[in-house]
Amino acid sequence: MRQLSRLGLACLLLAAPVRGDEGMWTFDNPPTRRLQERYGFTPTQEWLDKVRLAAVRFMAGGSGSFVSPEGLMLTNHHVGLGCIQNLSTAEKDYVSAGFLAATRAEERACPGYEVNVLVGIEDVTARVLGGVRPGMTDKEAGDARKAAAAAVENDCARRTGLRCDLVSLYQGSEYALYTYRKYTDVRLVFAPEGQAAYFGGDADNFTYPRFNLDVAFFRAYEDGRPARPTSWLRWNRGGAKEGDLVFVPGNPGSTSRHDTVAQLESERDRLLPEALAYYQRRLKVLRDYVARGPENARRAGPSILQLENSFKALSGRLEALRDEPAMAAKRREEEELRRRIAAEPALARETRTAFEDIAAARKRHDARLGEYRYGSFGWSKLLGLAGQLVRYVEETAKPNEQRLDEYIDAALPSLENALFSPAPIHKDLEIVTLTDQLEGAREALGADHPYVKAVLGGRTPAEVAREAVEGTKLDQVAARRALAAGGPAAVRDSTDPMIALARRIDPLGRELRRYDEDQVKAVITRAGERIARARFALHGKTVAPDATFTLRLAYGTVKGYAAHGTRVPPFTTLHGLYDRAAGFSYAEPWSLSPLFREEKDDLELTTPYNFVSDADVIGGNSGSPVIDRAGELVGLIFDGNMESLALDYFYTDETARAIAVDARGILEVVDDVYGADALLQELAGP
Amino acid sequence: MRQLSRLGLACLLLAAPVRGDEGMWTFDNPPTRRLQERYGFTPTQEWLDKVRLAAVRFMAGGSGSFVSPEGLMLTNHHVGLGCIQNLSTAEKDYVSAGFLAATRAEERACPGYEVNVLVGIEDVTARVLGGVRPGMTDKEAGDARKAAAAAVENDCARRTGLRCDLVSLYQGSEYALYTYRKYTDVRLVFAPEGQAAYFGGDADNFTYPRFNLDVAFFRAYEDGRPARPTSWLRWNRGGAKEGDLVFVPGNPGSTSRHDTVAQLESERDRLLPEALAYYQRRLKVLRDYVARGPENARRAGPSILQLENSFKALSGRLEALRDEPAMAAKRREEEELRRRIAAEPALARETRTAFEDIAAARKRHDARLGEYRYGSFGWSKLLGLAGQLVRYVEETAKPNEQRLDEYIDAALPSLENALFSPAPIHKDLEIVTLTDQLEGAREALGADHPYVKAVLGGRTPAEVAREAVEGTKLDQVAARRALAAGGPAAVRDSTDPMIALARRIDPLGRELRRYDEDQVKAVITRAGERIARARFALHGKTVAPDATFTLRLAYGTVKGYAAHGTRVPPFTTLHGLYDRAAGFSYAEPWSLSPLFREEKDDLELTTPYNFVSDADVIGGNSGSPVIDRAGELVGLIFDGNMESLALDYFYTDETARAIAVDARGILEVVDDVYGADALLQELAGP
Repeated sequence: MRQLSRLGLACLLLAAPVRGDEGMWTFDNPPTRRLQERYGFTPTQEWLDKVRLAAVRFMAGGSGSFVSPEGLMLTNHHVGLGCIQNLSTAEKDYVSAGFLAATRAEERACPGYEVNVLVGIEDVTARVLGGVRPGMTDKEAGDARKAAAAAVENDCARRTGLRCDLVSLYQGSEYALYTYRKYTDVRLVFAPEGQAAYFGGDADNFTYPRFNLDVAFFRAYEDGRPARPTSWLRWNRGGAKEGDLVFVPGNPGSTSRHDTVAQLESERDRLLPEALAYYQRRLKVLRDYVARGPENARRAGPSILQLENSFKALSGRLEALRDEPAMAAKRREEEELRRRIAAEPALARETRTAFEDIAAARKRHDARLGEYRYGSFGWSKLLGLAGQLVRYVEETAKPNEQRLDEYIDAALPSLENALFSPAPIHKDLEIVTLTDQLEGAREALGADHPYVKAVLGGRTPAEVAREAVEGTKLDQVAARRALAAGGPAAVRDSTDPMIALARRIDPLGRELRRYDEDQVKAVITRAGERIARARFALHGKTVAPDATFTLRLAYGTVKGYAAHGTRVPPFTTLHGLYDRAAGFSYAEPWSLSPLFREEKDDLELTTPYNFVSDADVIGGNSGSPVIDRAGELVGLIFDGNMESLALDYFYTDETARAIAVDARGILEVVDDVYGADALLQELAGP
Repeated sequence: MRQLSRLGLACLLLAAPVRGDEGMWTFDNPPTRRLQERYGFTPTQEWLDKVRLAAVRFMAGGSGSFVSPEGLMLTNHHVGLGCIQNLSTAEKDYVSAGFLAATRAEERACPGYEVNVLVGIEDVTARVLGGVRPGMTDKEAGDARKAAAAAVENDCARRTGLRCDLVSLYQGSEYALYTYRKYTDVRLVFAPEGQAAYFGGDADNFTYPRFNLDVAFFRAYEDGRPARPTSWLRWNRGGAKEGDLVFVPGNPGSTSRHDTVAQLESERDRLLPEALAYYQRRLKVLRDYVARGPENARRAGPSILQLENSFKALSGRLEALRDEPAMAAKRREEEELRRRIAAEPALARETRTAFEDIAAARKRHDARLGEYRYGSFGWSKLLGLAGQLVRYVEETAKPNEQRLDEYIDAALPSLENALFSPAPIHKDLEIVTLTDQLEGAREALGADHPYVKAVLGGRTPAEVAREAVEGTKLDQVAARRALAAGGPAAVRDSTDPMIALARRIDPLGRELRRYDEDQVKAVITRAGERIARARFALHGKTVAPDATFTLRLAYGTVKGYAAHGTRVPPFTTLHGLYDRAAGFSYAEPWSLSPLFREEKDDLELTTPYNFVSDADVIGGNSGSPVIDRAGELVGLIFDGNMESLALDYFYTDETARAIAVDARGILEVVDDVYGADALLQELAGP
């Protein structure tokens, strides 16, 4: 934790060019001066520590927070959806019906779940970059950096017994070692009916006004007993009001604000169109599957929800990149930066051909885009597990520093937690997804591509998929454990057809990965690092680093915005839920869940339900608490509006808004619709 | 009524190119075939007559309908606003507090109001155009047309005692004589609180979802007794549902769908920008006035509402014309038409230089745009009345066929109704508006312009305005009556300073008007008529004529649309009103009216409140009933969304929607908020 003292220095460097309430700030460099200037508020170190230690990261892909001294955690339904889905069966579908544990004993363990609390941040830039010499090629530099990184993580893990993640900041010009307390016994406490969580479905996703209870409660356990977190957030029953300063601690996934124009153009012209076509394809396959019956709908529904979410998110990002004025501003900014670099001989010497190098590397990436999509294990769960097993036994047999990143000792506990998760796997669905994956590969790469030849061997995708899925035992945790325990020999000799398929794919996937690491990532990292250093030299460290799915602090105010020809209100209320449902005559996805229909008369309908703020948050912040100056919980981030999807590339507070469930709405509904008395009592605090 | 038999012929000509539910159809040419094809519904002659005779036109600028056998009429609050405002005083403000006549005796007469019921349509094209010879100049043709038109109207008025209006259709290629039963004793029965009628104010205007009770009830009287209309609409208590076919009889103001590209471009580049700047100027003046106290706010509030409405409407129209793809389609359409005309020698001969003539005439119009705005009597009420008086005595002394249009015998009763209206005039407000008007003239025309010299005579606008307003007696109806009765001599000798001002302006205004009629309108009418005839020859009469503030029948279905990133619901409910108000913390213009706050618990909040359909309606349709196949009332048009403002130029049913108050919502609120028992009973029908 000593690195938190860097705060002082960083503050001196804070200057003007941050826009509005921009910034996903690291906890060792909070925007103290700006907060003081704009809001007359300075978070104390105690405030920062309390917030940081109450914030959790769900490795399932989101954020959350402790909201009681007994390990109770609040997050989004869609962050916990994997667990809720995995605990469900055809007979008992908690996704649609909701779940409420009346007692601790009824809380149900989430297969494969892991949550993390950030306990330490250490600057390790010198250790990571110390081995990189000026004369090295990009590949050599990359190898040196990788070896140092693995050493740093493993040393840390050995020393502390904690989860240790090396985090690359500012395009790789800085490295921090993040240490986490880790909980792998995570249990479901409460989930509302899916209809209430996803009211409006894909149509309303990324829009506002909204009326969603995208909420779930979990509990962290340690040694079979409820965890006692160091810190937890008090529930503010008064909520926030318009104009209030609010904070959002959470784990934004990734942003590209420091990317070069060449990178953004490739994203706009190649990567995003390809990804959108791919998601559309997957959606079609799953929708066809779902159309065949209600149990199919239950099995694939959550995947469809997530795919639709991704599709709409990427569409919004593509739209943001196609916004010519915004891109023109990016171009001008980059031209200005390059002009200023050129004017300073020392900087010009150090930066060298960084911009050209990145453009060339990105071209190399785009040249094999089809293989990036289809050239490895892909989206079939079983093939993914098989691939992990094949690599697990091979990698763990090597010395630590020679392994692929995700198999170093420090990473193994989390990896094993997922690899041996008892989450159910539906073979009929697996056949459908694997068939589609293999068909997609054949279409994208051509019948003569080595990958296609290796996986199909002249047979049809449907034949290969059916044989592999029907013949495999990998849907059983025991089978996976046995293979992992058996080591390289067991995997090599296995006659499991899915393992056989993964063995054929493995060398091709490794070749592609080496290409990516050496020809693309190593080059972009080194060049990006040079640009970042030039930028620091010219401007100081005035902006937050791009997001990396690590804990950040964003802030902003609760406020509506101008859109749809009028003003959009800062708050919605429960009245609005009933209005919108009735306005569509209760047609899907605007039907009301049964309990919301039944309990309407008990609700105080003017209770604030959702609200918006201009805090700088993006995907990965899902489940983040919204807290006030006192550090108390006033809301729960669950989405951003369409306009906020531009935040991946550019900050704007004009119409981009983060959408939260209001803390008052949660209490009102948990009480009057779900009658969750024990939960309410626990939230009331000791 | 014999001309309704033209129906048969018109039907044969109906062909494909109408888009979706396009069309504001005249009652003698309803879209029978199209209705049958799309909806399996054919309105009978009886149905058409019943609807036509239940529809009323408010000369204040809107539509309405009879909803009881005792002359009760339903329209919008904003159509009746002038009356409600004129009946109000500083002590009793019916605009903000609402008005409810508990008995017939309490119903209050609206100063200067007139409503019309269309009783006859006659094709008089031959009579109007009979005097136009091929060799005539445009001016000669215009004079011949005007003389014939005045004769037709006056003959009709003398013969029938009804209001007789000549209506030019299809750019002047057809003329119809519309005869109206006229009611000038119009009394206010019910108006809700202004806050309920205009919830969301200017911000929400032209947007949807909406939550407005833009409703008022009036009663037509004849000989001091409630009128007994030939037809009236039954109230459908079941309302409409999504997908239902609905009809809107009403009086759309004017459209420009048949205009040439040159006309649209002039509208886009000159007329609309000028008008927007002008409205903004007037709004600023009135807002400054209103800021000086609550009584000022009461006096000018409705004018501000109407100006804001116009400003937003014109902004939307300008945006529509700036939509490049839509304009490109217009251009292609016109090019195609011109190509086809050129390919037919007879058509080419007859059409001649019509497109070039229109473009040239429009240029002449635009060259004197500043004078069109400021070169006559303008927006001061008192100067307007003075100008009318000066012309009234002069014109009525001439033989009918030599008079300005609005002073022919047939027009006089309606004109006098307005001229001698006892509506209050506030001199302090008049000084403000007249000062601004004179200042605007000096800025737009320059100090050396004859108009500016004539009105200011070297003094300041403020001096001239103050002297004229303070010195005039024209705010008294008796003074106006005396001058009118005194004839030309009385007006010539009057020392009333406002009359003196009007006398100085009159010759200049007349010169401009002659210029407009001879150099602009006569040319555009004749050329437009030629183009229209060519279009008929090529396509048949497949589209409805442009709107002319005469009765039309539109139709469409109740349906939501895709916007704001999601779907917009077909209906809103009372729940939504309370949601939106609370979402803004009851800040203006989203505060709740006192009664809506108090009576909330008595309301069934799921009652549909507003709804949208794709019926082809625009300004002037305000107050139109929305009726179902049975001819029963299901709603009340009060607005269109922003997207519908494009309907002035192009029909589209993708997102353009007409917004109505739901008939069920009106009943629910009139009952449970306003407790208007007698009204409810009357609506329940005999």
